[in-house]
Amino acid sequence: MNEMLSLHDIQQAARRIAPHVSRTPLLGSEALNTKYSAELAYKAENLQRIGAFKARGGVNAVFALDDAAAAKGVATHSSGNHGAALARAAKLRGIPAYIVVPQGANPVKRANIARFGAEIIECEPTMAGREQALEDLVARTGATVVHPYADTRVMAGQGTVALEVLEEFPDPDIVLVPLGGGGLISGCATVLKSLAPGTRVIGIEPDGAADALASFKAGEVIPVDSPDTIADGLRATVGEPNLAVIRERVDDIVTVSDVDIVRAMHELMPALGCLLEPSAVLGHAAIMTGAVDVKNHRVAVILTGGNVDLAAMPGA
Amino acid sequence: MNEMLSLHDIQQAARRIAPHVSRTPLLGSEALNTKYSAELAYKAENLQRIGAFKARGGVNAVFALDDAAAAKGVATHSSGNHGAALARAAKLRGIPAYIVVPQGANPVKRANIARFGAEIIECEPTMAGREQALEDLVARTGATVVHPYADTRVMAGQGTVALEVLEEFPDPDIVLVPLGGGGLISGCATVLKSLAPGTRVIGIEPDGAADALASFKAGEVIPVDSPDTIADGLRATVGEPNLAVIRERVDDIVTVSDVDIVRAMHELMPALGCLLEPSAVLGHAAIMTGAVDVKNHRVAVILTGGNVDLAAMPGA
Repeated sequence: MNEMLSLHDIQQAARRIAPHVSRTPLLGSEALNTKYSAELAYKAENLQRIGAFKARGGVNAVFALDDAAAAKGVATHSSGNHGAALARAAKLRGIPAYIVVPQGANPVKRANIARFGAEIIECEPTMAGREQALEDLVARTGATVVHPYADTRVMAGQGTVALEVLEEFPDPDIVLVPLGGGGLISGCATVLKSLAPGTRVIGIEPDGAADALASFKAGEVIPVDSPDTIADGLRATVGEPNLAVIRERVDDIVTVSDVDIVRAMHELMPALGCLLEPSAVLGHAAIMTGAVDVKNHRVAVILTGGNVDLAAMPGA
Repeated sequence: MNEMLSLHDIQQAARRIAPHVSRTPLLGSEALNTKYSAELAYKAENLQRIGAFKARGGVNAVFALDDAAAAKGVATHSSGNHGAALARAAKLRGIPAYIVVPQGANPVKRANIARFGAEIIECEPTMAGREQALEDLVARTGATVVHPYADTRVMAGQGTVALEVLEEFPDPDIVLVPLGGGGLISGCATVLKSLAPGTRVIGIEPDGAADALASFKAGEVIPVDSPDTIADGLRATVGEPNLAVIRERVDDIVTVSDVDIVRAMHELMPALGCLLEPSAVLGHAAIMTGAVDVKNHRVAVILTGGNVDLAAMPGA
């Protein structure tokens, strides 16, 4: 990527994806507003197609391809939601999708990929294993790789979440965004710093996969070798182009523990009437722990997805 | 009640409650549409304030009172959601609320009542026990009783659900409505038979609490002495004024088993990314079992609430 992601990229993505994704609601809870003395608006991407915001980036990437490239299909590696998003987008366009899935991936998410008729290729559950499998796949098929986050088309698609937030909840004081590979936050921060420059954009990472925080401080990508967190959507290492955007447009990164994440799930799901996957509740976990002080502020909290395996969910 | 509930009552309720309730989204799932060969639109009242459609009727009843009556407060008996709805509405208007709650009520729902500062009075978990406790209460306080469903103001409030459905999903072929006391279905059927007369309105009851079906056939209220169903919101006996509306405006009533209800919860929650209480999924259960044939139809399915106690939820 030569040029940094722009607001224009995201506005273009919004027009491209509109026929194929849902406009998700902003949810609120009077009980939570009272408890935290704040005006909290939760962007419910768990109610998005495929149950996660990744539907947006997948559609944008697939529909941006020219016909010749599209005909050979698209490929990626994904622990789940991006794979389902790409499989769905490919099906909508009528082209093949090849998805590399690490062994042990969340079965709910894996089933979501299979449902759209994509070819699933299993790999070792490491970044090296994922990348080798993907290389082999591309050599075989000529498919276009759509990286889960280190891809401008994907980042632009994810950024449309923030466009929708601002339309209903203008000029928030703070926006909280879960941070894994950095696709969502780089898109959202680009929108927010353009259209609501007074908004503080804060990324939240699991403390067992806090590579983005270390990378943010160091100014270069510093991977965590064995990420260890219940938030399976946030185990990836922050991307190079994502880090570049994050360093320019994100105000802060804070971390929360897996215990905080589970507590946040148990508080937030009944309060909002939603199913939420662990990765989705990091913003709320940061509110609960005080890692982000929201008192007397208007705060948008991005909920990323709802593909939780209830059977495997820890108790309160 | 002398005059039967009218469309005008419901339109008036819609204006009265608009500042105090949420407009809930209609959710869809491509996977479910494909599986059932139908266009299914799920009205997500689990995302409503207090996590259930009952917020609507509660607000309408409380804000319709004149100031003198309002000052003495409101009272009701409720296994849960109506109690929370009335407590919340009373708090919004700044008047007292007294709620009779049967022993053994769903703890999630009970906590929702307590949260709004209502006075909770425990009673035996029978209709007779509820009614005696309520009588005593009214003798003590002079509060206005707002019955959970056999009340025109409540029925009118609940009917606003159908107004919203029609705005986004005009002229459905079928609308499926869970049926307990009959407040929701009498309001919705009144709207639908006025504004979309070609729509078939079908009530769904648990087969362990199928008093409305028996009453519908007999033409008079026939209670079930010991209702036995996991759908705790649907154990009540259909009300007299509700039955009158149902007999005039509802096309059919079908039943589903508790096993079907649990299966429907496990299919629908992940498909929509929502938490749903057992009572909420009866429409979907009727689709799954084939009790209602939806093939090639446009079907609105009313999801009534999300106040499920996950810790007590049976496995798939």
